[in-house]
Amino acid sequence: MMEAVVLSQGNELTTGLTVDTNAHFLAGQLQEKGITVIRVITVPDRMDDLVDVLQQAARLAPIVVSTGGLGPTRDDLTSEAVGQAFGWPLELNGLAMDQVRARYAKWNRRMPEINRRQAELPVGATVLENHWGTAPGFSVDVGECRLYFMPGVPREMRPMFQQHVLPNIVERHQLQPPLLHTLRVIGLGESAIEERLSGLELAGLTIGFRTKSPENQVKLMFSPTTSAASRQAAIDAVRARIGWQAFGLDSGDLAEVTGDKLAARGETVALAESCTAGGLSAWLASVPGASRYLMGGAIVYSNAEKTRQTGIPESTIAQHGAVSEAVARGLAEGIRDRVGTTWGIGITGIAGPTGGTEDKPVGTVHYAVAGPKGTVHRCDRFPGDRGRIQRLAGAAALAMLFRGL
Amino acid sequence: MMEAVVLSQGNELTTGLTVDTNAHFLAGQLQEKGITVIRVITVPDRMDDLVDVLQQAARLAPIVVSTGGLGPTRDDLTSEAVGQAFGWPLELNGLAMDQVRARYAKWNRRMPEINRRQAELPVGATVLENHWGTAPGFSVDVGECRLYFMPGVPREMRPMFQQHVLPNIVERHQLQPPLLHTLRVIGLGESAIEERLSGLELAGLTIGFRTKSPENQVKLMFSPTTSAASRQAAIDAVRARIGWQAFGLDSGDLAEVTGDKLAARGETVALAESCTAGGLSAWLASVPGASRYLMGGAIVYSNAEKTRQTGIPESTIAQHGAVSEAVARGLAEGIRDRVGTTWGIGITGIAGPTGGTEDKPVGTVHYAVAGPKGTVHRCDRFPGDRGRIQRLAGAAALAMLFRGL
Repeated sequence: MMEAVVLSQGNELTTGLTVDTNAHFLAGQLQEKGITVIRVITVPDRMDDLVDVLQQAARLAPIVVSTGGLGPTRDDLTSEAVGQAFGWPLELNGLAMDQVRARYAKWNRRMPEINRRQAELPVGATVLENHWGTAPGFSVDVGECRLYFMPGVPREMRPMFQQHVLPNIVERHQLQPPLLHTLRVIGLGESAIEERLSGLELAGLTIGFRTKSPENQVKLMFSPTTSAASRQAAIDAVRARIGWQAFGLDSGDLAEVTGDKLAARGETVALAESCTAGGLSAWLASVPGASRYLMGGAIVYSNAEKTRQTGIPESTIAQHGAVSEAVARGLAEGIRDRVGTTWGIGITGIAGPTGGTEDKPVGTVHYAVAGPKGTVHRCDRFPGDRGRIQRLAGAAALAMLFRGL
Repeated sequence: MMEAVVLSQGNELTTGLTVDTNAHFLAGQLQEKGITVIRVITVPDRMDDLVDVLQQAARLAPIVVSTGGLGPTRDDLTSEAVGQAFGWPLELNGLAMDQVRARYAKWNRRMPEINRRQAELPVGATVLENHWGTAPGFSVDVGECRLYFMPGVPREMRPMFQQHVLPNIVERHQLQPPLLHTLRVIGLGESAIEERLSGLELAGLTIGFRTKSPENQVKLMFSPTTSAASRQAAIDAVRARIGWQAFGLDSGDLAEVTGDKLAARGETVALAESCTAGGLSAWLASVPGASRYLMGGAIVYSNAEKTRQTGIPESTIAQHGAVSEAVARGLAEGIRDRVGTTWGIGITGIAGPTGGTEDKPVGTVHYAVAGPKGTVHRCDRFPGDRGRIQRLAGAAALAMLFRGL
């Protein structure tokens, strides 16, 4: 098994200002190629610490991937630290200099003199082109180890890693990466999914799980020699076990998949949200092009607004309570009718932390979807704090629409 | 300056399944006590790697804080690794065993035999009580270094750190932590805030910045000997420089502060959102007790819904376009009138990635707040992708309401 070390540099990480999403991204990417990350090491911008960590990393594994410290300011020490760690002088690298200059030319701006520092690299370094910012990356070889240095800004680092670094790693070590598919699942927890898949043994397939609330993802990792036909058969078997909750394979999220379905059918949707207060609507609208199917909706936090915006009689609310099947159905049907859409969604519940009763504890949510063939309703009790209850309730209502399509 | 090392253990971190929020939390907490974190090291659940890292950490700093690896399963190696690293046998720790048993008793469940492992600690370890889960933490001394081991589950680790570990660190090293205040700022970037504060020198005060989109936070760190009066004077001076955008000191977010103001005045609000599609309403509703002032609102994604729900004449939309001052004002005034609230907010814009024109490029957002004394309007062009434009537009509209209160 090939091994790697991930380095992250920067005071913003060691002082708790920034979460280290770079290390998380890199660990996931390396893992998908079958590489084991044996250390993630984060260091502040201090020369002695950097030199120490670089020397240690080069001894630990044949692959070292580092982010941060390539900017033009005094705090950016990577290049100098690499020189000190391995005994190489720095030189102005012509290719790197050209790239920094070209970047400023493209922006129609004069290059500040300070940015020359970004092109001073250890003698013998190989430049990694940065099409996304000014700091060129570079790699160096120390014995059997190749160290790759990339900028810390994620929108520069990620494409540089995927376009320059990862292909180089795969080629250099002649890796045969596993073939990876992601099955996206809504409305089932990790243990429920595991239960449905228990006893299912498929040659060449390794199954992993990842929670990305409100959904769960099933990672299907096939050995590189698996044929396309056996992969398809395995995927079908897994989907059959999980059921409709497996809403997408290598797809977008539930809002995107549902939106695509609506758009393909030329159908539309409107929402009346009480406890989620626009959260589900905003999720639908997070997808580019949502205006094709999302017409509008109502936020009906107060009882008066439930009546005014969806026509639910005050007496219905008085009789059943605002959090009830009758009101959820009334919201879905009322908003569908008033906006004139194919589908209507209604959500009413108790997000907490107060407002719960013995009969209707915090987390109780009634939701309904009204469509051409009638209205379906469900009541769930969602766990967690206010934010989680709102998120899970929105996802459950959207899953109900998805299933109806 | 006191120094510390943070360790994180677990395959879920080195394979990219989980973002290491524990290290981020601990780095921030230590920093606030004036402690410099010189390494964050993440290791998979492998004995040799753990032993190596533990020995290294104990040499690097007098404080080592570790999370993960305390569970009952085969993967949980911390206790054994500490024993191997420093040459101590393990023994069944009576106090730890009692705590694990008491936990199961409280849940009315029989303790599985496997959980005995959680009480097998290195000889001489000091137990850290876990009131929040089964795994007791522990600390050991190696020369000048004290190493603290806590569970990896954040809801168990955080209170254990704050109640047991941090007070012990402060006492052991007789730290005089700086006094910390957080000023929360909306609608000004970090560089704009820095500009407003430039030249302001106040004895005993160190200023730091933290971005938590859509707001920015100014961290005011006072040396522990600063008197309450000089602190107040310094805070007042900083607030005066920044202006109304500094909406809260050690407070909740803008939705919470605005909501508190509305509730105190007995006033109410309704929203008509186009490009933000319920996102601002959902943000307001994220605050417990929002039903005191958030009555409801309209999601008016289509032009027909703008007219139907807020009464804006079709001719106005046709003449000015859906993204215009006239429509933003119409949305704010229309929804205020229809819902019968003190305040109305209207937002209409182009969130992209398509739909922009030369006159109205992607990011153009018109927003308005209607109130008892009339309507204010503003147009901004927000940067970033669809999600960022929606978030910034909602925050700008809410800031406009906050300023009007």
